[in-house]
Amino acid sequence: MTSTDRTHDPDAETWVDSARAHREFPIQNLPLGVFSVAGEEPRIGCAIGDEIVDLRSLALDGRLPPDVAPLLSAVELNSLFGAPAAQRRALRHALFDLLSNPERQMEVQMHLHSAARCQMHVPARVGDFTDFFAGIHHATNGGRLVNPNSPLPANYKFLPIAYHSRSSSIRVSGQPVRRPCGQRKPPDFTTPVFGPSQRLDYELELGVWIAGENELGSAVSVDDAFGRVAGFCLVNDWSARDLQAWEFQPLGPFLSKSFHTTISPWVVTAEAMIPFLMPHNARTVDDPELLPYLVTTTGGSGDALSIQLEVFLTTAQMRKQGRPPHRLSAGRASDMYWTVAQMIAHHTVNGCNLVPADLLGSGTISSAQPGGAGCLLEISQNGKQPLELPSGESRFYLEDSDEIRLKATASAEGFRSIGFGDCVAIVASGGSA
Amino acid sequence: MTSTDRTHDPDAETWVDSARAHREFPIQNLPLGVFSVAGEEPRIGCAIGDEIVDLRSLALDGRLPPDVAPLLSAVELNSLFGAPAAQRRALRHALFDLLSNPERQMEVQMHLHSAARCQMHVPARVGDFTDFFAGIHHATNGGRLVNPNSPLPANYKFLPIAYHSRSSSIRVSGQPVRRPCGQRKPPDFTTPVFGPSQRLDYELELGVWIAGENELGSAVSVDDAFGRVAGFCLVNDWSARDLQAWEFQPLGPFLSKSFHTTISPWVVTAEAMIPFLMPHNARTVDDPELLPYLVTTTGGSGDALSIQLEVFLTTAQMRKQGRPPHRLSAGRASDMYWTVAQMIAHHTVNGCNLVPADLLGSGTISSAQPGGAGCLLEISQNGKQPLELPSGESRFYLEDSDEIRLKATASAEGFRSIGFGDCVAIVASGGSA
Repeated sequence: MTSTDRTHDPDAETWVDSARAHREFPIQNLPLGVFSVAGEEPRIGCAIGDEIVDLRSLALDGRLPPDVAPLLSAVELNSLFGAPAAQRRALRHALFDLLSNPERQMEVQMHLHSAARCQMHVPARVGDFTDFFAGIHHATNGGRLVNPNSPLPANYKFLPIAYHSRSSSIRVSGQPVRRPCGQRKPPDFTTPVFGPSQRLDYELELGVWIAGENELGSAVSVDDAFGRVAGFCLVNDWSARDLQAWEFQPLGPFLSKSFHTTISPWVVTAEAMIPFLMPHNARTVDDPELLPYLVTTTGGSGDALSIQLEVFLTTAQMRKQGRPPHRLSAGRASDMYWTVAQMIAHHTVNGCNLVPADLLGSGTISSAQPGGAGCLLEISQNGKQPLELPSGESRFYLEDSDEIRLKATASAEGFRSIGFGDCVAIVASGGSA
Repeated sequence: MTSTDRTHDPDAETWVDSARAHREFPIQNLPLGVFSVAGEEPRIGCAIGDEIVDLRSLALDGRLPPDVAPLLSAVELNSLFGAPAAQRRALRHALFDLLSNPERQMEVQMHLHSAARCQMHVPARVGDFTDFFAGIHHATNGGRLVNPNSPLPANYKFLPIAYHSRSSSIRVSGQPVRRPCGQRKPPDFTTPVFGPSQRLDYELELGVWIAGENELGSAVSVDDAFGRVAGFCLVNDWSARDLQAWEFQPLGPFLSKSFHTTISPWVVTAEAMIPFLMPHNARTVDDPELLPYLVTTTGGSGDALSIQLEVFLTTAQMRKQGRPPHRLSAGRASDMYWTVAQMIAHHTVNGCNLVPADLLGSGTISSAQPGGAGCLLEISQNGKQPLELPSGESRFYLEDSDEIRLKATASAEGFRSIGFGDCVAIVASGGSA
């Protein structure tokens, strides 16, 4: 991808000191989120280095485009996601100009907060949360545990499989995850037992925040679909594998997924991701031909994303021993079998209306390489093969006090890399069982 | 069930003439909804006979309890559903007093609108929409088409199976349903084809509006669960069976259900339903013992509901011939294998937070009797056995211009029956295929 947009210039710099060598939030990123300062009402902000620009107060001061300003007084990003994309682009350009031009420092400086002193919130009131299954290596690895000879579902390469998931239990990075209770049926039992999940897992996913709205009954073409993306985040789709195995037939996962989903607080905007769009290469010539609604007018699938994703585990013992987090997974968003555009085109082809701040999850992103499995179901072969940790501990699934941290970096030749910020949570012990 | 609550007195009468012999909305019902009068903003109302009481203006006039009044100025019922149950009870009693006492007629009359001149709206901003599978005859009849010898899933009698469904496409009664497009794979095809669904079906369901909120991580006991019900409605969970058959493995139904869901506009409150609670008899002595979280402290399942449900079809030709609607289905809510209390206890046992205006669907309610099948999948044996209509037409699945109307009546010895109002929609032709 090339870009002549000045906000993508890798040599651009900001007068915000902490942003200059920042690995995640240089001036080329400018992600949007919702933060609060001790006791005050949440407000919309933008990350720059180790600081957060208060966009509400900046707008009130008249420093931002007048048509965008009213959208920035909200306590969530829904209205901004509902606005025309041109307004979000105008906001990005205005912020870029304010933060890159040293002459504007005086007027902007007072609107900066140290991120370390701010609390982050779920950035928007989530509409519906849809979780896809676009990670073909995850689908294959998981399927192989059940059907070694035919691991992929028959429909896998014809449509982006997805299911509706739960929006009310989405929480922002940093909030502990309580181990869920539920029914599980061990293979040698004839009836289920009840108690805290014994097979608590993480799932490494990319999240997509939706912008705009298509009327009920009208589909979004795959050509137009990327225009419906407000931005991206990280999603840890916590899963209780033992609950899942017992409950999921015939209607899909339910309680095994609905107890908690962790998302990263910053929305890395579609505009910021332009340099990191790349050709989609996940399909091979042997794969079946796609139905036309999943093919762009230029014959492609839409763009893949050049994002490197990682998962790190820190156990209580590792913390005590002062050990660094242990990398469990490393995946590439470009390995997804389906593009975001295809997911959106499929989601709406039946006329389903996507609304501002709907959230899509990619499904677990695993890579074919060793160390590329995006969840413990794959790593431990569903509890058969222990994962040995440098601390001398081992894991089949997560134990209480384990902390899981997801990271993501978008990078491309000739552009400044940008990061997604933290998506972290610690496992708290289970409950009322 | 007995009740000494004066609002359940079968002999109580109102000064609203149209309500006296009304089959659905006598003074014992007092359902809540959101309506609008030509061009004006939606407001909260209560149905009484053929009229709607404007609760916003009645509250502004100071005629309703002061702690409830502020909740009635909203354009949706979410805040009222978030309030303590005592406030909803107080509202019911106040309305009962105003509408039963002829001396109050002068002050209330001006707040009545003819329902025929009002437009109804989805009564609340739906949070998450969860659809259960509690109709055991539906599960059996549907399962028999695939596994004649073992129609019920192995987990069916251990837990109330459910899946997350789509909230954005919920629409109020009266709005046409557009036939969805999508992928289907006819049995003799090796690859799927795309186009309008050939197997469009209705599903007769009871809806449950949730009140209050349990904190993430905390379960609702089956004893407390009915206290989380704001009220009930009818749900037609439109389903595209051909899309469903191809897409639903392994993660459950997705596009086959997300194109449209029709609900009845009136919320028949939990308070109004008290006389129609009845012992739950759907489980037999041969059924497996339940895990304790699904059993009340008195050893039961919670209450069943004495509601008679019906579905009527009117085709274009029947309309032309002036024929009455043809009854397709007749079910009893008391046939559900799981009670509403069990559904809520199960939904939250993993710590999932239910929030005000979440909507639960019961799943298709079929009865064992002839004529008791709650959808065409069952009636036509998935397109194998034509349904003959009095008009000389036949149906396997729905055709364009077919109208489906769901009705419900709650009745019990010694009490005045109440109805749910209309849940109706006509099938419009499909789209952009």
